[in-house]
Amino acid sequence: MPPDGDFAERARARQGKLTKPPGSLGRLEEIAVRLAAIQRTDTPKTRPRAIVLFAGDHGVTEEGVSPYPSEVTGQMIANFHAGGAAINALSRVADAELSVVDVGTLSNPAVRCGTRNFVREPAMTEEEMDAAIEVGRSEVRRLEGVRILGLGEMGIGNTTAASAMTAALTGRSVAAVTGRGTGVDGPGLLRKVDVIERALALHSPKTPRAILASVGGLEIAALVGVCLEAAEGGVAILVDGFITTAAFAVAWKLEPAVKDYAFFSHVSVEPGHEALHQLMDVRPLLDLELRLGEGTGAALAIPILDAAVAAHNEMATFESASVSDKAR
Amino acid sequence: MPPDGDFAERARARQGKLTKPPGSLGRLEEIAVRLAAIQRTDTPKTRPRAIVLFAGDHGVTEEGVSPYPSEVTGQMIANFHAGGAAINALSRVADAELSVVDVGTLSNPAVRCGTRNFVREPAMTEEEMDAAIEVGRSEVRRLEGVRILGLGEMGIGNTTAASAMTAALTGRSVAAVTGRGTGVDGPGLLRKVDVIERALALHSPKTPRAILASVGGLEIAALVGVCLEAAEGGVAILVDGFITTAAFAVAWKLEPAVKDYAFFSHVSVEPGHEALHQLMDVRPLLDLELRLGEGTGAALAIPILDAAVAAHNEMATFESASVSDKAR
Repeated sequence: MPPDGDFAERARARQGKLTKPPGSLGRLEEIAVRLAAIQRTDTPKTRPRAIVLFAGDHGVTEEGVSPYPSEVTGQMIANFHAGGAAINALSRVADAELSVVDVGTLSNPAVRCGTRNFVREPAMTEEEMDAAIEVGRSEVRRLEGVRILGLGEMGIGNTTAASAMTAALTGRSVAAVTGRGTGVDGPGLLRKVDVIERALALHSPKTPRAILASVGGLEIAALVGVCLEAAEGGVAILVDGFITTAAFAVAWKLEPAVKDYAFFSHVSVEPGHEALHQLMDVRPLLDLELRLGEGTGAALAIPILDAAVAAHNEMATFESASVSDKAR
Repeated sequence: MPPDGDFAERARARQGKLTKPPGSLGRLEEIAVRLAAIQRTDTPKTRPRAIVLFAGDHGVTEEGVSPYPSEVTGQMIANFHAGGAAINALSRVADAELSVVDVGTLSNPAVRCGTRNFVREPAMTEEEMDAAIEVGRSEVRRLEGVRILGLGEMGIGNTTAASAMTAALTGRSVAAVTGRGTGVDGPGLLRKVDVIERALALHSPKTPRAILASVGGLEIAALVGVCLEAAEGGVAILVDGFITTAAFAVAWKLEPAVKDYAFFSHVSVEPGHEALHQLMDVRPLLDLELRLGEGTGAALAIPILDAAVAAHNEMATFESASVSDKAR
């Protein structure tokens, strides 16, 4: 169901009558217009909202691509539940519910105990991938009524998966789209690039589904499911950092209309992130040099959506406020 | 009283222990460290906060530099009090008190009924300028206890004043630092540049005070007073758009230490704004293509400061959360 052009047009007309020079609220105006179209209403809303954080482990960590061991994924899930992670603090500030879903980690075989090491074999079978996608879809259905869904993820090794996906999706060189992730050192970065190059040479994935299955991740597949289900249900999503954007890009390749429902919260310092934004011709809202993931960028962008909608719904018009709107 | 280096160092050390890769919260980490130093505390706060909006009229509007008549300044003040302007909506979202101070408009001779037409004579006398500066200073004293002061302004014609000030402060050409303001058309923009060039040729102001008195504005002088008083009182300020940044730049020329207390919320589409940021070597937090003023950019940046402080104060450490912080 595509966003509604009539509501967009009415929202645009209203923006022109509000007590401000036309266009002076910049990107806030575009946000309000798009939310009106997505929600098919004259008064778009940003509440309730939620951050959906999917976690998964990655077999490729065996290759030494991250300075942290895979055990940290599970430890961080415990930290999320205890309320001590960055996304807990930022979700509180954004007044967003935080939902954490373990799609498959070392100690939890939800779909499976982490992906296979994709330098040797595909990360997932098609069946496992589809099961992970369904985890994401069902989470969106569970959160029915939520107006804004912020995407988040956690998974030691997942910048390696996202860089592999990005190289395959964009055709750029692995070196150009691979960064330090959580902070791998110089030799580690070279190793990471080499691992990704070997994996892509081994699998040569051609389709978005083949890319996701061969070098993706369980949490990434779940996020693809979120993007598809949200767009089908007419729910706006707020994409976070590099990993969630890689997931979004796969969903966009499968179903270009998902772009109509998406806002891009920020550009991270991971070089592959900007490559994905360019591929899809989208412009993120923030550049705060984040490289954490978890949905932290999405949480930071929520108040911008709130502001866009508040201005749209609550401002007086030139007429109602008796303010002159004409040149002398 | 300069910000405290010991608190900055302790805040930086704490950032390194929180459950995230070091540096991964990007500019949020720098914000938290600076607020800790400004407030001399281990747990910086962003509440209570206020937006202080100063309004004033400009005699130079006689020259046709704005598509709106000066009467709109007073009409917008009424709109602020009725709650119908953009800054009302955005202050509510930011949970910030909004304080509106009329420093001198057509119908209110607070300091005087707007500035003189600066293409013919200085905008203000030294005495009027000092009275306006004191209006800003006293507003800061009235708001004692507020932790974050967002700067805002309203005044038809004030981008003309700010562009004149920016050309004088930076030495750049008038054409390079003059934009369309509220939306002047092509011939209007040429007229605006010509008016500013003639004014600067007439006054040739050399000192920051001479620049402010000759081509500034009453609301701009009040904002200079806010910057000086806030820094003296150890209060963080959040600079808004082009006009408040021009005011801040004068305060910075008078007292370079004010920079230690300032955060720059956004870069507007007015070309002079970026010129001022470059002059002072500062980097704004947001780029949302705003060009409204009123404090709207400052209001949008408040939740980013909230997020920075929430992460700093509320996150668990690797030790407390039993998360591995070492490479394998």
